[in-house]
Amino acid sequence: MRFAERLADIVGPANVLTSPADSAPYLTDWRRQYSSQALCVVKPASTAEVASVVRACAAEGVAVVPQGGNTGLCGGSVPSGLGREIVLSLARMNRIREIDVLNQTMTVEAGCVLSAVRQAASDAGRLFPLSLAAEGSCQLGGNLSTNAGGVNVLRYGMAREQVLGIEVVLPDARVWNGLRGLRKDNTGYDLKQLFLGAEGTLGVITAAVLRLHPMPTATTTAWIGLDAASRAVELLALLGESVGDRLSAFELISRDCLQAVLEKSPNSHDPLPAPHPWYVLAEFCDGGDDASLVARVEEALSRCVEGSVLQDAVLAQSRAQARALWAIRELIPEAQFTGVKHDISVPISKIAEFIELVGAELRLRFPQAKPYVFGHVGDGNLHYNVGPPGLLAEREAVNAIVYEIVAKLGGSISAEHGLGQLKREEILLRKDPLELELMANLKRVFDPRQIMNPGKVLSAKLFQK
Amino acid sequence: MRFAERLADIVGPANVLTSPADSAPYLTDWRRQYSSQALCVVKPASTAEVASVVRACAAEGVAVVPQGGNTGLCGGSVPSGLGREIVLSLARMNRIREIDVLNQTMTVEAGCVLSAVRQAASDAGRLFPLSLAAEGSCQLGGNLSTNAGGVNVLRYGMAREQVLGIEVVLPDARVWNGLRGLRKDNTGYDLKQLFLGAEGTLGVITAAVLRLHPMPTATTTAWIGLDAASRAVELLALLGESVGDRLSAFELISRDCLQAVLEKSPNSHDPLPAPHPWYVLAEFCDGGDDASLVARVEEALSRCVEGSVLQDAVLAQSRAQARALWAIRELIPEAQFTGVKHDISVPISKIAEFIELVGAELRLRFPQAKPYVFGHVGDGNLHYNVGPPGLLAEREAVNAIVYEIVAKLGGSISAEHGLGQLKREEILLRKDPLELELMANLKRVFDPRQIMNPGKVLSAKLFQK
Repeated sequence: MRFAERLADIVGPANVLTSPADSAPYLTDWRRQYSSQALCVVKPASTAEVASVVRACAAEGVAVVPQGGNTGLCGGSVPSGLGREIVLSLARMNRIREIDVLNQTMTVEAGCVLSAVRQAASDAGRLFPLSLAAEGSCQLGGNLSTNAGGVNVLRYGMAREQVLGIEVVLPDARVWNGLRGLRKDNTGYDLKQLFLGAEGTLGVITAAVLRLHPMPTATTTAWIGLDAASRAVELLALLGESVGDRLSAFELISRDCLQAVLEKSPNSHDPLPAPHPWYVLAEFCDGGDDASLVARVEEALSRCVEGSVLQDAVLAQSRAQARALWAIRELIPEAQFTGVKHDISVPISKIAEFIELVGAELRLRFPQAKPYVFGHVGDGNLHYNVGPPGLLAEREAVNAIVYEIVAKLGGSISAEHGLGQLKREEILLRKDPLELELMANLKRVFDPRQIMNPGKVLSAKLFQK
Repeated sequence: MRFAERLADIVGPANVLTSPADSAPYLTDWRRQYSSQALCVVKPASTAEVASVVRACAAEGVAVVPQGGNTGLCGGSVPSGLGREIVLSLARMNRIREIDVLNQTMTVEAGCVLSAVRQAASDAGRLFPLSLAAEGSCQLGGNLSTNAGGVNVLRYGMAREQVLGIEVVLPDARVWNGLRGLRKDNTGYDLKQLFLGAEGTLGVITAAVLRLHPMPTATTTAWIGLDAASRAVELLALLGESVGDRLSAFELISRDCLQAVLEKSPNSHDPLPAPHPWYVLAEFCDGGDDASLVARVEEALSRCVEGSVLQDAVLAQSRAQARALWAIRELIPEAQFTGVKHDISVPISKIAEFIELVGAELRLRFPQAKPYVFGHVGDGNLHYNVGPPGLLAEREAVNAIVYEIVAKLGGSISAEHGLGQLKREEILLRKDPLELELMANLKRVFDPRQIMNPGKVLSAKLFQK
């Protein structure tokens, strides 16, 4: 236990976990698909401590697995079992270092829980727009390292677009302080972009300067029934033209998803009197008061009724009703937790074609297959899940069907969840070899000894030349 | 002339310029501060031709200087004179390859003139928001390679944020086709970010998939008089709270700038009855009709009058009046063309402090100095120019004053114009050595033989270790 003791000298003995009971929550991922051992779990409290821990690991050739809230869905935040590893938990680095209201920025540490970041911004009268189901436990460092998406991407962009500057501990333990709060800075390569979305394979993000927005004062939520998935894309374009950026979320939900929620959650109910094959949950926000926003949205929606783009729609009449509509969306993943899951994207204009092609191919090959289709249509991102649970045995074949059609339509096999361990090998088949080669070259430059989160993102095959 | 002949075999003899008269416009930058010789100017018409030209150059160790509209302000697009170079003009690669209205994207080649890109988007009922003074001649490839800014950054972001995918010819002549039209794609490192803003030093951007927006249908323009520069930052925050993203441009203009325009342009006149020490030119846009936008803006502005944040304001009553207000802003650079110019950024909250500190220091050292202050305050970006022309002899000393205060306030010495040749050495003093080292490492990986736009961005000193 000599190595753990040396780390204890850096962070204090209470912050090095070695017993199986203490370590367990850090060694298995949220969906319990990946689990492996680590020498210990280390919980530094400052950037300097992170650097010291990384230095000690680099000297011993021990790998570092950075971990935030450990809510990732691709096994990126737990040990891979490929060698001697420690889990580096950023949880204790949870300070809001600064809020600059006039600059519309805040500087926060990687271990801040996302909901706390949002709350701190809100307390200062500003919006930090990144919002996703795990926000009560995921941490900002993980959000940035996975370039998280969520429900506000349509309006505000991915995690990457919320960042003006970062602080990173490099694999050689040097600290790069890139905590600039500037909207414009064209003084060379934009290095922060490399670390954002790199899933901890190039360094450890320890803090960031985040961009804030004016807090919308009016919000309204609509539940809309459609007769075809293609209508959702038409509706998106029409609403974009009439309400512009007031449209902040635009979620597609199939009847089967709604049905699954209604069956599993006795408190939920169908928002519309008659069933429809497809639904959109749309949220609109703006400055000013609710009434003028609602008037504008109602006018836009009624024009869509006239054009038969939508069949029926209801606007939430209270915050409670809006929450109930969102609850349906949020309960979908749990309501069909055990299918074959996908997190894909295609150009928005190809969404309907994707659903049609994959559905047809699945029916042909697996008559028992039942697709549960939902997701962020405004971003071209679907969570295309396939039941029943028995189909898990055919996961590879189902994946192949989905990914072939994704490729044909110019899409991505991981829209917002990343590669982690889950898609590390699959991406070798799906990405231009030249691009994979450039990625491997970057890894070699930044982390020549491959101590940063090994076994994630980059297959070992990329280095066997 | 053997080498030029070989290039002529690739692009056709008419597209290789060797005579001094033909080549001259490509060898000197727009401000006529940089001029150097090249073996020839080559004008390929396709990505394949670009790749063949780069291959021929790589084989001979000839450097490639990619050039768009040659409107850059830092000498990044003309030869540096450091060795054998060709100018690679992208001007013939000017096709709009595709517009996908439902995906809100367009795929365009690097040589498209920015105004043509904007027009093509507009013809399809969509907005491509990048807009800057040179848009009638600058080309998209140059805009992306310099991560151009302009007047709509506040609302829509820099050039980088307009890009979903790019196609690049690498220094080894391989073509990376990253032309994906996806808003979400988390499958590894986001390689496109490296080439955006790299000023052609890592490869040649030949095409891009651009993000489009709904076309605003209502616009209104305000000219606002203020009693202090700090008021502009207060006003920005207040307007953000009341009109949100309807604020699309927010330009600060000092009285001296207005005065210079009034003196040089007999057709211009002071928009307000009484003089004010500072002005803001603000533009608001939205869907819907002008009347409701104007009502909202008037209400927001009158609240600012009550709080004494602004002294006086006028809204343009017609498109012609709005154009006249913008003409004042656009005439400023010409009206004091010969001063010591800066393109700096600081956190928005430090704008007033910056103006005060630099002004005081300049008055102390150079009593004759006259600052002309204008710029994109909403982005923290000032064009801080100092007259009279005689002060050009003291350029180094003036720069030192400005850049020291930029550093003190956590700012950048090049907000939107890039480094090019102009700031290649200065940045060595202003940037963290670790960051410079990482930049040099990236250059080594992507362009080990340094054939891509040598002498730009990266000082040779970075490679002398």
